[in-house]
Amino acid sequence: MNSNKNIRSERYERGLVNLKKVDAESGEKVVEILGKISEDFATYLIEYPFGDIYNRPGLDLRSREIATIAALTALGNARPQLKVHISAALNVGLTREEIKEIIIQMSVYSGFPSAINGLTAAEEVFNE
Amino acid sequence: MNSNKNIRSERYERGLVNLKKVDAESGEKVVEILGKISEDFATYLIEYPFGDIYNRPGLDLRSREIATIAALTALGNARPQLKVHISAALNVGLTREEIKEIIIQMSVYSGFPSAINGLTAAEEVFNE
Amino acid sequence: MNSNKNIRSERYERGLVNLKKVDAESGEKVVEILGKISEDFATYLIEYPFGDIYNRPGLDLRSREIATIAALTALGNARPQLKVHISAALNVGLTREEIKEIIIQMSVYSGFPSAINGLTAAEEVFNE
Amino acid sequence: MNSNKNIRSERYERGLVNLKKVDAESGEKVVEILGKISEDFATYLIEYPFGDIYNRPGLDLRSREIATIAALTALGNARPQLKVHISAALNVGLTREEIKEIIIQMSVYSGFPSAINGLTAAEEVFNE
Amino acid sequence: MNSNKNIRSERYERGLVNLKKVDAESGEKVVEILGKISEDFATYLIEYPFGDIYNRPGLDLRSREIATIAALTALGNARPQLKVHISAALNVGLTREEIKEIIIQMSVYSGFPSAINGLTAAEEVFNE
Amino acid sequence: MNSNKNIRSERYERGLVNLKKVDAESGEKVVEILGKISEDFATYLIEYPFGDIYNRPGLDLRSREIATIAALTALGNARPQLKVHISAALNVGLTREEIKEIIIQMSVYSGFPSAINGLTAAEEVFNE
Repeated sequence: MNSNKNIRSERYERGLVNLKKVDAESGEKVVEILGKISEDFATYLIEYPFGDIYNRPGLDLRSREIATIAALTALGNARPQLKVHISAALNVGLTREEIKEIIIQMSVYSGFPSAINGLTAAEEVFNE
Repeated sequence: MNSNKNIRSERYERGLVNLKKVDAESGEKVVEILGKISEDFATYLIEYPFGDIYNRPGLDLRSREIATIAALTALGNARPQLKVHISAALNVGLTREEIKEIIIQMSVYSGFPSAINGLTAAEEVFNE
Repeated sequence: MNSNKNIRSERYERGLVNLKKVDAESGEKVVEILGKISEDFATYLIEYPFGDIYNRPGLDLRSREIATIAALTALGNARPQLKVHISAALNVGLTREEIKEIIIQMSVYSGFPSAINGLTAAEEVFNE
Repeated sequence: MNSNKNIRSERYERGLVNLKKVDAESGEKVVEILGKISEDFATYLIEYPFGDIYNRPGLDLRSREIATIAALTALGNARPQLKVHISAALNVGLTREEIKEIIIQMSVYSGFPSAINGLTAAEEVFNE
Repeated sequence: MNSNKNIRSERYERGLVNLKKVDAESGEKVVEILGKISEDFATYLIEYPFGDIYNRPGLDLRSREIATIAALTALGNARPQLKVHISAALNVGLTREEIKEIIIQMSVYSGFPSAINGLTAAEEVFNE
Repeated sequence: MNSNKNIRSERYERGLVNLKKVDAESGEKVVEILGKISEDFATYLIEYPFGDIYNRPGLDLRSREIATIAALTALGNARPQLKVHISAALNVGLTREEIKEIIIQMSVYSGFPSAINGLTAAEEVFNE
């Protein structure tokens, strides 16, 4: 209803491809669960972040996942999404040690509790 | 008083070297201003973030500045520090376009207002 | 001790009436649990938000619940209270679709993770 | 480059129409300033919030502006955007008194300082 | 309108007395400015924080100001209110050094930028 | 690797002593769990917060725990750490009533939901 079918599909298809690149499994599960609550929002989630932003050539996926892990650790109120992106970071080539370095660095910018909680989230992902 | 002179100086000297690497001018100005308010805290600022964290070999300075710009844009309540690190990011080799990509990406994780404010902060640094 | 019995009772009674209007069941349960931890704070919770603010004639309850759901989704650190007010919003006449629209809109102002977490909170309330 | 010209233009045109509805002047000024920093991001800002979200039929513009003012007051770190949306709220029919009610209500959910700062932002808009 | 005159006046008078204790000058100026925007909210500001909370016997004013300075430094989005309470802390007997200690400690819990911005706010108050 | 063994040990030993003062049991458990994820970060956690900050003579431990409980309640995104410091506050002599007063006061500065969640966290600690 709120978007032309043909228009949606191009950004959507592009977004799906990018989503698979960063996080085949856990990302798709999120989209599937969301789709049952709001199909439109699940579509936006694929279109804007993954079809538009992660599709931009100006920054590689590795750098994008560094930025996302840093931001979600610092905000400290989105643990499920942090875990999805820690998994994504592993998929695009960051090592466990590098991921932990990013999170440890957040102790400087958002405090030690945010870094502690980020590290335990990372450990949960590593153990899955 | 609160730290042994010899102990302080090693981490401190190491921190000063790292601070100069990432941001010779604006970082040193911050430390100088802070030193007049609290000499001890200015020392901690060099010792812990720059002497300990930025000294760690597990992540390159480019990646560290990506993480810091992302976090400070997302938090949205530390504009002066965001500007210092946008300047630092330029010093360690990130391009203006890459810095803008990181900030634009934050529209996904902390909302469009945080990205707008981050971009105007970046523009101010670029124009200085 | 900290408030005259007669003074308390008028704002308190008024607050209880308003609390019942927005959320008979889950609101009262919160107040009961809180009352065992701090009777005074349970009293303040009825007096100030419900006796003073929600009692003001300048904005209808429907609009007030829109504002509260938006704020708690955006802050992202008060999921139990968000769920109480999603339930309250249903009680004052907002539809499930309208509640989801408010939360989806927050993707713009506080990011996609806050909207995802808000939608799953709403789904939990709808399924209860 | 990152979006098909024809695809962009439909969501973009739709977004421009919605932007004009909520805030002809100050919104367009923001987009113009942003366009000089990042043309692509200025495009996203019109496409996603205004072309996608504010275009959705499930919630009227009045309710959408209530939600946005509440969220930006509560977050407390995006004063310029709060002022744009206070101006937008006036444009879609909210009264000054109703806008102040929304902000006063935030004292309950994000504290008195956020409400004080929201009210002074509103006063600045009303005096312009 | 929304509260019985006699009821208001007792909590209000009590609040005014407490406000004068913690911060005669800058607190009253805030209330005066706010009163021109919303007389009712200026009343609530005196009644609830100062008439109810700061009136409670279970914690001395010195401890209350420590808590407030810590919270406002950590939140980092309410600089004007932080400055009012740094001034209030001086009035209830905290020394400049103690106030700086509280703010420096926040580097651990909300990050170094929040502590830096808190210290510059303190310096501004000390120089007034 | 990143710090001279002799240098680390002095701040580390000092930090361990201070950690034991504020929270023998739950603090040490956190450090032990963290140590398995990142030994270096567990070391920093003892060195900087406890070896440097909590070691400073300018503010007593009671005041430091008031500040920490206030900040973590206000931030609202670090419940495990809030619980550790509620336990620590009891250890340095704050009463249950005083701890609840600090948290109740946060309703003014960060909103009622943050105070409600802080009080339920306190109750969990008191019941352990």
